[in-house]
This record gives sequence, structure tokens and C-alpha cells, in this order.
Amino acid sequence: MRITPIIFIISALQILSSQSVADYKKEADAIIEASLKDISTYERLAELCDTFGPRFSGSQNLEDAIDWILEEMKQDGLYNVHGEEVTVPHWVRGKESAELIEPHRKNLNMLGLGGSIATPRTGIRAEVLVVKNFDELEARKEEAKGKIVLFNAPFTTYGETVQYRYRGAPAAAKAGAVASLIRSVGPYSMDTPHTGVMAYEENVRKIPHAAITVEDAMMLQRIQDRGQKIVVKLQMSAKMLPDAISRNVVAEIRGSEKPEEVVVIGGHIDSWDVGQGAMDDAGGCVVAWDALNVINNLGLKPKRTIRCVMWTNEENGLGGAKAYRDAHMNELDNHVLAVESDAGVFAPKGFGFSGSPEALKIIREIGKLLEPIGAGKIRDGGGGADIGPMKPYGVPLAGLNVDGSRYFWYHHTHADMMDKLNPDEVNRCKAAMAVLAYVVADMPQKLPRVIPE
Amino acid sequence: MRITPIIFIISALQILSSQSVADYKKEADAIIEASLKDISTYERLAELCDTFGPRFSGSQNLEDAIDWILEEMKQDGLYNVHGEEVTVPHWVRGKESAELIEPHRKNLNMLGLGGSIATPRTGIRAEVLVVKNFDELEARKEEAKGKIVLFNAPFTTYGETVQYRYRGAPAAAKAGAVASLIRSVGPYSMDTPHTGVMAYEENVRKIPHAAITVEDAMMLQRIQDRGQKIVVKLQMSAKMLPDAISRNVVAEIRGSEKPEEVVVIGGHIDSWDVGQGAMDDAGGCVVAWDALNVINNLGLKPKRTIRCVMWTNEENGLGGAKAYRDAHMNELDNHVLAVESDAGVFAPKGFGFSGSPEALKIIREIGKLLEPIGAGKIRDGGGGADIGPMKPYGVPLAGLNVDGSRYFWYHHTHADMMDKLNPDEVNRCKAAMAVLAYVVADMPQKLPRVIPE
Repeated sequence: MRITPIIFIISALQILSSQSVADYKKEADAIIEASLKDISTYERLAELCDTFGPRFSGSQNLEDAIDWILEEMKQDGLYNVHGEEVTVPHWVRGKESAELIEPHRKNLNMLGLGGSIATPRTGIRAEVLVVKNFDELEARKEEAKGKIVLFNAPFTTYGETVQYRYRGAPAAAKAGAVASLIRSVGPYSMDTPHTGVMAYEENVRKIPHAAITVEDAMMLQRIQDRGQKIVVKLQMSAKMLPDAISRNVVAEIRGSEKPEEVVVIGGHIDSWDVGQGAMDDAGGCVVAWDALNVINNLGLKPKRTIRCVMWTNEENGLGGAKAYRDAHMNELDNHVLAVESDAGVFAPKGFGFSGSPEALKIIREIGKLLEPIGAGKIRDGGGGADIGPMKPYGVPLAGLNVDGSRYFWYHHTHADMMDKLNPDEVNRCKAAMAVLAYVVADMPQKLPRVIPE
Repeated sequence: MRITPIIFIISALQILSSQSVADYKKEADAIIEASLKDISTYERLAELCDTFGPRFSGSQNLEDAIDWILEEMKQDGLYNVHGEEVTVPHWVRGKESAELIEPHRKNLNMLGLGGSIATPRTGIRAEVLVVKNFDELEARKEEAKGKIVLFNAPFTTYGETVQYRYRGAPAAAKAGAVASLIRSVGPYSMDTPHTGVMAYEENVRKIPHAAITVEDAMMLQRIQDRGQKIVVKLQMSAKMLPDAISRNVVAEIRGSEKPEEVVVIGGHIDSWDVGQGAMDDAGGCVVAWDALNVINNLGLKPKRTIRCVMWTNEENGLGGAKAYRDAHMNELDNHVLAVESDAGVFAPKGFGFSGSPEALKIIREIGKLLEPIGAGKIRDGGGGADIGPMKPYGVPLAGLNVDGSRYFWYHHTHADMMDKLNPDEVNRCKAAMAVLAYVVADMPQKLPRVIPE
């Protein structure tokens, strides 16, 4: 039984030479041309964002947006259009504010962090201790008692800096703080606070946790460094409501020969409760959706099924991703490839791919078909938060890579709105998703998986 | 009597060859070196901004900041340090908000415009008509009745686009609108509204006038273009209080030979009531102030007086500029040059100069001394809002030119804070102001004025 897959893969490689991928040049060019021909995808994305507002898990906005998408998908003539129910957390931010009281009065633009508790109704008024990182908090923990701790950690990488957002509250609580603030997780700010998910720890007192702007965090650092006293009043009325029901959105082009084999492409339909979530991640959803339309409208009939999935609740729970994996567990062996776009639909550069070396070679050949739109660079390693749960089951993963130079400027902010996106770049992302999905769905051989040991 | 000034200027030019300006190379280099040696000017600027907050005309913040500056200037050992009283308008914005009600609910980040009236206490809830410009309003004026008019004019030049901020309210009121909004006057936004002064017209009904963000204005345009109804609720409690007393700040290096002849350098000490007014224009004030300190600390004794002036109430009335002109009317013949920095203390490029061709030639020679710091480019034409009122009296004017690529990103916003400035650039602005002031104050001949007709 161990030998069989190896033989299978070797035969696959013999059949599927790189030549066979190059044979898709004509279809790829047609998909690219059709993808770039008008700005309808940008307009559809704008209509989604403008009509319903941000789509936070648990909100009516999100469910209204999903209803509209399902209806539109049916109008488009897509196959097997439906929602799949997902239980999601339902946090609401409510009214909130932070005011600098000393050394001068100033309203501090802020956003509570997702999952935070409220302050008492009358707020928390306390002196502020500014620390640059966890080490400084540890060194100065005696000073933190009864204070509001501000983590003024400059943006380095997202992965490093987001630690203060995610686990700043319990760290501050352990030092005796009454609330915690972070410098927003972003490299550039124009008075632009960033929200995002945070967590508490078991057996550690829960304290309110919020983000202020980069500008104000730097100001408070300077004030403290000058030896001046800082007093802030924080008011938050956030609360966690009972879980709500949301839906993953599914639509397909049914495979003409092997409908049971599936190429999944998509993004996440939920967003934070600020801005429009245009970049994060309505764009990823709509380019995957319209990638199906481009293929359909060209009359192309891929051998395998191409399924667009818009996962719900990526931002604060990954509920949609886990529910998809669980609901489709029996199908995962036939998930030929799962592709996510969640890095913003900016100028596409290519894909990051996680799978077997043989498959990587094939994806690199497909990349060549994307060179006309600058999206041909295939990196080893990639995926996405929503497709990640399928990885342990052997599903090859790909993530759309784009020009990310401004992604973290807008991430989880009121500035993540349609004006930050460009119709031509959106179209190129759509073309990249469509070409990759179509070729993998139509090529003679199933994309080879990692050889089981 | 007509001949005399010509003879005077010709002799002046003979005495003051370009050679004599080049002779200041050693002093200029010493001023530049001393200006760049530490970050104390940046730190002083930050202390001013961080300690007192924004410095709006009529506010206690502004007067507290002025008190502190006067005290510090005395500690610095500057000469003739004093405030000169100026009557200024006192507008307060109070609590304000704009909420999108249809097609979905959203808090619209906004700033009331300076001088606007309030809405009724319960707010104004009305349908919105979006127009791109005054012409479209004229063409659609029948539709404007009873609505809130939004001027969605994209930023072209400041001069062109600011028209909607300044005179949008009476234009909308004439068409029967109940309130008016503008797209913030700026080329780039991260959910960043811009305030600024607006005006009403006599015999035209006053209506509330506020700025929303570029993002939201573009969104409302798209919603209207899609044929959807837009409803907004605007609440403003702004009011005009009785005039207040502020002060122009004055400090000098007394001239060693011709103390009655004066070179003025400065900026405006007031700001809008948002952010820190770091760039607009605390920076201009502090570089002029520390330019005096650099010259003093080097032991240089210019023949003429160098006077630092920080004008008050530039933003909404030019009260300080007019009061300075009036209070120093008798001295204006002896104002050899007035220099303003009000374009942000970013990387300096040189000066714009308005004066006689002979004087321009000399200023260009001085520009050569500033080439080591990249600030040598002298343009024909320049000045500043606060020195402008002296122009009709023959005073030659210069304005510091800088890399203005992001000036209008931050202008009149909460984002105009210290982090947008750079210690080295601030120092170079200081050096440019100091070298220009020192050479003009010390050179043998008074800078030649335009020949009177």
C-alpha cells in the first residue's frame, strides 16, 4: 500500500509534462483578456462595500451582504449556489472613547480590540505607564499597579508587533494594570487606529484593551520621557453577545469529467466592524467569484469542479474555515488545490504555494502563463488563514501574493475602503485566480500531493 | 526726488557685489554646522506641541504655550522678548458628529469648518445631494432644496479645491440646502478629515458646514451614482464666542550698528484645534526662534536687528499679521526683509522671494551659501500669509520652500503631529532661516527695495 501512491505520482508526472501546462496558453490568454475588459468586478466590489457597510461576524450587515451575494451568484448562473451555516462569536464594540486628561486634554482616536471587556460605566481614569515592549513591562512591573499600561511597540513585522494586540491585556493585568492600550499595529498613520482580535488568559484578570494611534502613542512616550505625568480616561462599553449564525458562501462551476475533484478559490466575507473591509477581504471574495464568471462566460468547461468559497468569521475565530473543513471532510482527499486571496487585491505578483515539489513545478509552469499581467512569480510556501485548516489533510494550498506595500497602512482601519483599490489591479488579481484555478481544474492529471510516508 | 532712489540703488549695487555675499561663506558654514549639531530644536518643538496641545485662537492652550515660549526665550538670553496683544476671534467646535443613516448606518468621521454655525440641538437629518463642483450644483439646484449638499471635489490644487471649504455653505444655501458638507481638502486620506476656515455671505442664510473624509465622500458619490438614496444626520454645536485676546510673540538679536533696521523671521503660533499643529506651524516658529539662538550662541553680532515674530491667529483671521503691521507701521520702512516659514519644516529647498530684481540677485547669492544643505534654490516670488500685509509698504518678503509632497496630507488634520517631522530636516530649515537672516542683517548694504515710481 505504500508503494502504490509513488507509482501513481510517477505516472502522473510522465503524463503531465510541463508541456501540457504550456498548452493552456490560449485559454490563459483568453481568460486574461476577458478579465481585463471592463471594470465590472470593481463596480461589483464597490456595490457590495457601499451598500452593506463593514461585515463583522454576528452583524446584520454581514448576513445582508451574504443574502445579496447568493442572489447575485444565482443571477450569474453559477452552480450549486448556497450558504453553509457557521456558528460565530458576536462581539459588539458599543460606544467607546479615550481622553487624555494630563498634561493637556485631548480626545485620543481609538478602537477597542475585538473581544475586550468594557470599562465600568463611568470609565477608568488612571495614570499611564508607557512601555516599549514586554521586557520593559517586566522590568517596571512595580510601576504598573493601578495604571493603564500603554505598549508603544513600533511596527517591525506584523507577526512580531501584533503580540501586543493579542496578548497585551493579560500581560498588563499580571503586572496589576487596570487597563491596557497599544500603539496601533501599522507602519504609517494619519490619525488612524487599527482594531483586531485580542485574547485573555485563563485565571488572569480581564482588563479592557484598546488601540490608540501611532501619533498619540509616540506623543505619550515623549511626555513620559520628559518626566511628565500622563492621565487618561478610557470608556468602553464592548460586550460579547451569545453566538450568532453566519454562513460560508459557496458557488461552483461543475466539473465536466471529474466533478467530485475540486479546486477551491476564495477569500473571507467577514471583516472588522470599521471601514468597508474592501481590501480585507471583500476584494478576495469578489475576484474569486468573478473568476468563475470569466471562465463560465468564455464557455470553458473544466474537467474538475471549481468552487468559490467565501469563508465567514476569519477575523475573530476562523469559524468559517473550521466549519468548511469539517463539513467537507469526506471531500478533502479530492480537494485538488485550495487558493486564497487575503493580502489585498493590489497589483498581483504571483502565488505562494505549499505542496509537493512536483506540484510546485507545475504551479511554476502555470505562473509563466501569468507573466503577461506581472503575476508569474511562484514562491515556495504560501496559503491563507481560511484554507490553513485543510493543510493537515494533505490539501495543496496557494495564496495570492500582491504588492503589499500599503496593506498594513489600512489593515483593520476605517481607511480600508474602496478608494484604496484600483480597477485594473483588481482585474489582474481576478485573472490570476481564474487562470490558476482553470488550469489546475482542467489539466489531465490531478495535482500531485506530497507522497505519504 | 524720483532720481535719488535710483542713484541710491545703483551705488548700493556697486558696493554690494555678489562677492560681498560670498564673503559670508565662513559664517554661513559655522551657522549650518551649529544648526545641525544636535536635535535640541526638534525636542523643543516636541515639548511645545506635547505639553500644550493644539493652539487655536481664543484657547487657553494657545496662551499657555505663548507664556511658556516667552519664558524660554528669556532663559535663552534673547533681547526684547515680549508679547504684543492681538484681538482674535474665538470659535469653538463643541461636540459634533455625522452619521450615515441610509443605505447603511455608519459614523462619518468629520470636522466642522471654522466659523460654521451649529445645527439645531436635535441635528439635521436629510437626504444628501452629491455634486462634484459649483457648476453641477447650479445645474441641479432644483434637487438641492431641503437637502444636505455634499461637494465631492477631488483635490487638484489647494487654491482651487479650498473654494468648496471657504464658500461652499453660501452656495449650497442659495440653492435651498439645509446644510453643506465637503470632501476634505487633501490629496490622500486614511480616514482623515481636514478642517479650515469657511465664510458666510451677507444676506445669504447661514447653514452648518463641515468636512467629511475623502473615502466617505467618494463612497457617497458612488451610492448616488447607483441611484440609491443617501440620508445623513449631522449634529454640530459650534459657536462663535466674544473675541479673545491673544499675543504675537517677539524676540530679538539687537543690531550692533543699525539696530533700527530689522530683518524679521517667523511663523504663526496659532494652529487649528486638531492634532498638534506641529507642521502648521509650530515648526516654523521654533526654527525661527532657534535660528536666533544659533546666531547668538556663535557670538555673531549682526549689524541690523534680527527679530523673531510668531504671529497669532493666522488660521482664522490673520489678526496677528494685521496687528503686527499696524503696531510696527512706523518701522516698516526699516524692515529690510521679512521671512516666513509656513510650508512645514520638511527638507528645505530654498526660498521664494518677492522684491526688487537687484535684491533677488543678492538673495540668490545667499542661496549659494545654502547649497550644502540642499536649500539653495531661490525662486522669484514668495512670501507668507503673515508677512503679506507688509508687502504694500514695500517690505521685501521671502518664504521658506520645502519638500511639500505630504504637506496637504496633514494640513489642518489630527495627523499634523510631531512624528511627521524629522530632526535633521527641522535643523536644516533652521540653518536656512539663520543664514538668510544673518547675511541680510549683516551685509554692508540694506537690501535694495523696488524703485518707487
